[in-house]
Amino acid sequence: MAIKRKTSLLKAVNTLTKTTDASDSPVKIALLGFGTVGSSVARVIAESKLPGIELTHIFNRNVERKRASAAAKCVPASVVWTENFDEILNSGAEIVVELMGGLDPAEDWLKKCFAAGKSVVTANKQLIAYRGAALSRLAAKHGVQLVHGAAVAGGVPVIPGILQGLGGDQITRISGIVNGTCNYILSRMETGAEYAAVLADAQRLGYAEANPSADVDGFDARAKLCILSRIALHAELDPDAVATQTISTVEAVDFAYAKELGCTIRQVSRAQMDAKSRLVHARVAPMLVPLTSPLAWSHGTQNMVVTSGKFGGDVVFSGHGAGGEPTAVAVVADILAVAQHSVAVELPVRRREVTGEFMAPHYLRFVVDDKPGIVSGIAGTLAKVGANIDSLLQRPGYPKHKLPFVITTEPCLTSTIEKAVAAMAKMDCMLERPLCLQILTLDDKAE
Amino acid sequence: MAIKRKTSLLKAVNTLTKTTDASDSPVKIALLGFGTVGSSVARVIAESKLPGIELTHIFNRNVERKRASAAAKCVPASVVWTENFDEILNSGAEIVVELMGGLDPAEDWLKKCFAAGKSVVTANKQLIAYRGAALSRLAAKHGVQLVHGAAVAGGVPVIPGILQGLGGDQITRISGIVNGTCNYILSRMETGAEYAAVLADAQRLGYAEANPSADVDGFDARAKLCILSRIALHAELDPDAVATQTISTVEAVDFAYAKELGCTIRQVSRAQMDAKSRLVHARVAPMLVPLTSPLAWSHGTQNMVVTSGKFGGDVVFSGHGAGGEPTAVAVVADILAVAQHSVAVELPVRRREVTGEFMAPHYLRFVVDDKPGIVSGIAGTLAKVGANIDSLLQRPGYPKHKLPFVITTEPCLTSTIEKAVAAMAKMDCMLERPLCLQILTLDDKAE
Repeated sequence: MAIKRKTSLLKAVNTLTKTTDASDSPVKIALLGFGTVGSSVARVIAESKLPGIELTHIFNRNVERKRASAAAKCVPASVVWTENFDEILNSGAEIVVELMGGLDPAEDWLKKCFAAGKSVVTANKQLIAYRGAALSRLAAKHGVQLVHGAAVAGGVPVIPGILQGLGGDQITRISGIVNGTCNYILSRMETGAEYAAVLADAQRLGYAEANPSADVDGFDARAKLCILSRIALHAELDPDAVATQTISTVEAVDFAYAKELGCTIRQVSRAQMDAKSRLVHARVAPMLVPLTSPLAWSHGTQNMVVTSGKFGGDVVFSGHGAGGEPTAVAVVADILAVAQHSVAVELPVRRREVTGEFMAPHYLRFVVDDKPGIVSGIAGTLAKVGANIDSLLQRPGYPKHKLPFVITTEPCLTSTIEKAVAAMAKMDCMLERPLCLQILTLDDKAE
Repeated sequence: MAIKRKTSLLKAVNTLTKTTDASDSPVKIALLGFGTVGSSVARVIAESKLPGIELTHIFNRNVERKRASAAAKCVPASVVWTENFDEILNSGAEIVVELMGGLDPAEDWLKKCFAAGKSVVTANKQLIAYRGAALSRLAAKHGVQLVHGAAVAGGVPVIPGILQGLGGDQITRISGIVNGTCNYILSRMETGAEYAAVLADAQRLGYAEANPSADVDGFDARAKLCILSRIALHAELDPDAVATQTISTVEAVDFAYAKELGCTIRQVSRAQMDAKSRLVHARVAPMLVPLTSPLAWSHGTQNMVVTSGKFGGDVVFSGHGAGGEPTAVAVVADILAVAQHSVAVELPVRRREVTGEFMAPHYLRFVVDDKPGIVSGIAGTLAKVGANIDSLLQRPGYPKHKLPFVITTEPCLTSTIEKAVAAMAKMDCMLERPLCLQILTLDDKAE
């Protein structure tokens, strides 16, 4: 009965806490960063008239310029604007919202916030991917919280959905489209456009950076995949150990061949836990996705995450993954969760080794100066590594001296096919390195 | 500074609560009902080895039969089996999981649980749709919690996703496929099968009841729509006031015509808040859904909910909506949330009036004994109510004495088109009442 009484008492205190926070004294919020997301957070707080929270401080470099901007119009006059972080640290703000990005000085500042008894809400995917586990432990040590629901898939509640709604399941696999820039480029290429032209459009529209490497080479998606692995697989991964493959070598012709195979091409981030070895198989790469798979549904800058659970099966989350307002919705949701003490408890996480190996069918696209013996040479190389050919596709209408054609293989290991690709790349007839893409199978369909 | 100190103190207590509950004394759980979902809940708890919770009691009528069943093998020997509810009420269980369904005696028993200081997790959609708001208030009065994440869309974390992840947004519209039986029937009919044959299959497979009315006539979906309206629109609706339309009058020919219009047919549950009048427009009916809309993606018994928020845009949740294990995942997630005191706070809800009116294009399918003047008669009736014809479709190959053909209209009010349908139904040539379906427009696309 001692246990019973204690729990009831604590429950009563907890109820009181929630009631008090929500109705009496609003929880004070400070923003670090008043860019696109920061100003949207201020606007959502102002317009949604959320009970129990109050924006009190905004930090930004060159703060006067920000304060004079149109975006600042929704900010109450009572808010203190500063370019001095110490002023935030010494303020009465109980939740600090970090929207600066990057590791430095964000990491150091978060630690100072924890030590000052402040909880932190952040959308900083690099910081959470590389330092999340350690920072979470540090926050717990100080009795405060670190919440990062906006770090993956912006306005799509994947992280709270998994933590709060799938906590009882054993998730064994996640696959997702978590980089809107790549999805914009690839879904535009689906209609026949070439990579370079679409990338230029994306840059003009502000979807891609002047140096697009972080997006198109998979580093942004890799950070998000590591965060998802921690939440869903309870596995802490080293982001640098996750294999990535650029989308920049995918060409319009690949979409034509993919279509003949009942597929399209998407930048897929996938991770799955091996039940026996506890190794995590993870990869960020352009992959062939069956048109019947939910991963083929997302167009434009949409994000999508599919979790596969032992008991609940496949669950799909989809929506706008980026942009000021969708990301702000996720940030404000996290602020509310901290203010209302309703942040879901994360199950313990363990460091896991990563491998890029998958057993999968593969798509190989060659561009050759056509002459007799090429197919037999390729077939010989594949036979040598033990990979079986499943189909050979050659669309008409291409010049013989620069002929793209495709071979698909039966399921084989990534390392096996890569060995074959390295050998085939050396063949005289090859005008460029063969493109090798994993083909997702119907197992990955949410049905 | 007084506020600051108090909050920090409460935060510390709260942290302590979470830690204590999770590691020291497990929270005791009692199950009411050991059917498909109940036994799956017991299995998920046993197999997922979740920290901090312990199943201690199971109630069921004819409990010895249940106890002897194969499903009971995963239940620890320490669990007390009983067919006496008072034994649950007087037990040390802190969370009661109600899986009996129906209003009586569930409603009365829940009230008794609250009065005894016990929180309740339930998957009972009828109870929550009809009595949810009042029961939530009563639970709060007793300082306990009522959580019902499994009442809508089973294993798809729609309710926690909205509460925890979209709490900062202003959701103005929800549309969903929330009845797996109807979705199974309609997605099977897509491939040419007739309603009666597919319904018989569904009954044989256990997807449909012997009396399928609750599913096919929309009453089950209506209850879920009311729960979603409360969570997402903060609107308490009277379920009986929500307009429903049966799917049983949809025929294979309608899918053929829908396809010509770039659509398929789904039982859609939709509700949207009118910004000015604060009336909620709500309807459960078979509707034409563009093939590009996420609502067209779900096949078989899948569920899907699309929320449209002012800031975050459209968010899609999809997965297995029913079945023992997916539903058990949602129930266990709720148990964990209560045990860890991380249940999201619901924003205040207000009673709202409901109307079945939508401004939408409509699909009208007639079956006539063909003779001259029919189209002009129909056109005249539509002109009289002020509805404009958008297209007229007549597929070849049907007998003239029993000819199905279709007219689509430009957007008009539901009441307007219903007036016209009532008039047209009286025309001599009509062999059956015209079928009238709303056509969802591309606004409802998640892009």
